[in-house]
Amino acid sequence: MKKEELSYIAGFLDGDGCIMLQLVFRADYRLGYQIRASIVFYQKQKYKNFLFWLKGKFQVGYIRDRNDGMSEYTIVGSKPVIGILKKLMPYLRLKKDQAELALEVLAKMPGSGRKMNSRILLELSLEVDKFAELNYSKKRTNTSEKVRQFLNKSLLNPVETEV
Amino acid sequence: MKKEELSYIAGFLDGDGCIMLQLVFRADYRLGYQIRASIVFYQKQKYKNFLFWLKGKFQVGYIRDRNDGMSEYTIVGSKPVIGILKKLMPYLRLKKDQAELALEVLAKMPGSGRKMNSRILLELSLEVDKFAELNYSKKRTNTSEKVRQFLNKSLLNPVETEV
Repeated sequence: MKKEELSYIAGFLDGDGCIMLQLVFRADYRLGYQIRASIVFYQKQKYKNFLFWLKGKFQVGYIRDRNDGMSEYTIVGSKPVIGILKKLMPYLRLKKDQAELALEVLAKMPGSGRKMNSRILLELSLEVDKFAELNYSKKRTNTSEKVRQFLNKSLLNPVETEV
Repeated sequence: MKKEELSYIAGFLDGDGCIMLQLVFRADYRLGYQIRASIVFYQKQKYKNFLFWLKGKFQVGYIRDRNDGMSEYTIVGSKPVIGILKKLMPYLRLKKDQAELALEVLAKMPGSGRKMNSRILLELSLEVDKFAELNYSKKRTNTSEKVRQFLNKSLLNPVETEV
């Protein structure tokens, strides 16, 4: 991708996009919670073509129409999110701190071969809390505290940490 | 300015900025209405530095704090608005049509030496209406119709146009 395209997209993301790290509860997960990374771009359905242009640039993610006249282009998953953030990083301004923290957290996620365990999950979930503060997520319900409670209750791998 | 900066700003404007052409009533104006061009960038007051960075790039306009925790960087006036739109034009995507129409209207505004008259004002106000449609301005009260009514009522220069 050209520099002008990357910087344009960085500007658009800074203005109207969203970088997210979330703790997602999965009933079928041994550790209860999953760390989900995503990037979301929004646009009026009328201008959905713009989102298709973006998707054409990144070659990942999916576009969906919401009920309120908006469309969303979402990229979910550590690997694609890391790839995009690294590309945009030199040009980001407002969301640079967020992007850096997201990359830090994602770099600590167990990769292929290594398994996630309760200690790593709890550590990372504390960083997800920090990230959420940068993002002003007020409606957050899944916090590191929830993860800790789940892990302790599940007796799978009780952890005593000084939170 | 560097290409990457211009394209970044174009992306930011596309995402979260605003290009405006407005009909503004001025009690002290012979023709009643003035066409006002402006560009506005918004940001949380916490990130006001970003707006100062932008202002440093353009060297025009003013920054003010709103009551709702946001700050606005506004550039008002044909000359600076034309200058900025021309710079950003190659990189704009979502607001390219708006920017082109704004430049068209502004190019027809009487320059130094030539005076605005009721015919030109009415013609341009019709184009401002078109522009407003691109901008989804629903709360608009000053339309070309209002301008026409004012001009006819003022008897200064009654105009019969097929609107």
